[in-house]
Amino acid sequence: MPHIPLPEHLPGITGLLEYRLDTALPIRDLTQILLRGESSLTQGERELIATLVSSRNCTNFCEAAHTKAADLLLGESETARLVKQNFETAPVSDKMKALLNIAALAQINGKSVTTEAVERARLAGATDLEIHDTVLITALFCLYNKYVDGLATVAPSDPAFYQTLGERIVGRGYTRPPGGFVAPK
Amino acid sequence: MPHIPLPEHLPGITGLLEYRLDTALPIRDLTQILLRGESSLTQGERELIATLVSSRNCTNFCEAAHTKAADLLLGESETARLVKQNFETAPVSDKMKALLNIAALAQINGKSVTTEAVERARLAGATDLEIHDTVLITALFCLYNKYVDGLATVAPSDPAFYQTLGERIVGRGYTRPPGGFVAPK
Repeated sequence: MPHIPLPEHLPGITGLLEYRLDTALPIRDLTQILLRGESSLTQGERELIATLVSSRNCTNFCEAAHTKAADLLLGESETARLVKQNFETAPVSDKMKALLNIAALAQINGKSVTTEAVERARLAGATDLEIHDTVLITALFCLYNKYVDGLATVAPSDPAFYQTLGERIVGRGYTRPPGGFVAPK
Repeated sequence: MPHIPLPEHLPGITGLLEYRLDTALPIRDLTQILLRGESSLTQGERELIATLVSSRNCTNFCEAAHTKAADLLLGESETARLVKQNFETAPVSDKMKALLNIAALAQINGKSVTTEAVERARLAGATDLEIHDTVLITALFCLYNKYVDGLATVAPSDPAFYQTLGERIVGRGYTRPPGGFVAPK
């Protein structure tokens, strides 16, 4: 049961984003810019970072939602699964492995991101902006994960929920739908 | 030295907020709403939460900046110091102790926030919204701390820097000044 009263039909982050709309707006905007805005990283690659961070933070709701979003964007469900298992041997580019490594380090602690980890990413072709965005996406999903878990929101166990949610995220992005969020049935 | 090229005269978060203006805007907006918007918690109390979280994350820049902001808002420099040392014995209300306890737990991990910790806050008079905001402020400062440390930004050692920065934060809030941020001399 959540620590504060939230609508039962809006689990995970969905209820929190409706609970306080004024704080939800900039959180949604930041996510939309970072995960859906123009970038030399694909939307699928950026969702893989969100997925890895949520998985490392053990935030089931976010992990399931962004795994599904990554699956839909990549057109298969192997990559996200393997990235979570061990990104070093997952079927992603060397640049993505290096960026996922930065994300994994930043998830532990900002100071864990070493010069060597950044140098590795640069040698694999990562730009300054890609390195910046990887750290900021990691920081943003640590915000989400703490928000979702810190208020003890509920994570549905039905995979169909995340299928519908993933389709919405991919189809419509992170901005608030007109009239507010309606939970997948 | 920062992991990406940032202007030397803009240390800590200040250079990052000028590096990518489109992502900086919602981060600034969220901070302005949470720390300066209408609330039953004073601005000083909210800065104490930001200070404690930054201190627990060992992010020197944010800790120094928000300690100074709290000091200026509270009109003395003892409370912030004692909150960081041990908030249970610091000169703050029982409600604030309970909220700082929630912040300290959420800083570790969202799942660390127990029903007992929330119940304690409620018994001390905290509202649902205050509990919500405490968790979200904690999550936001974990974002800031990871962002600032994950890109290895520089924290000036001169206390005069934070005095000037604290005065700006208190006087002008978290929105971007016209023409961009100019570092304290």
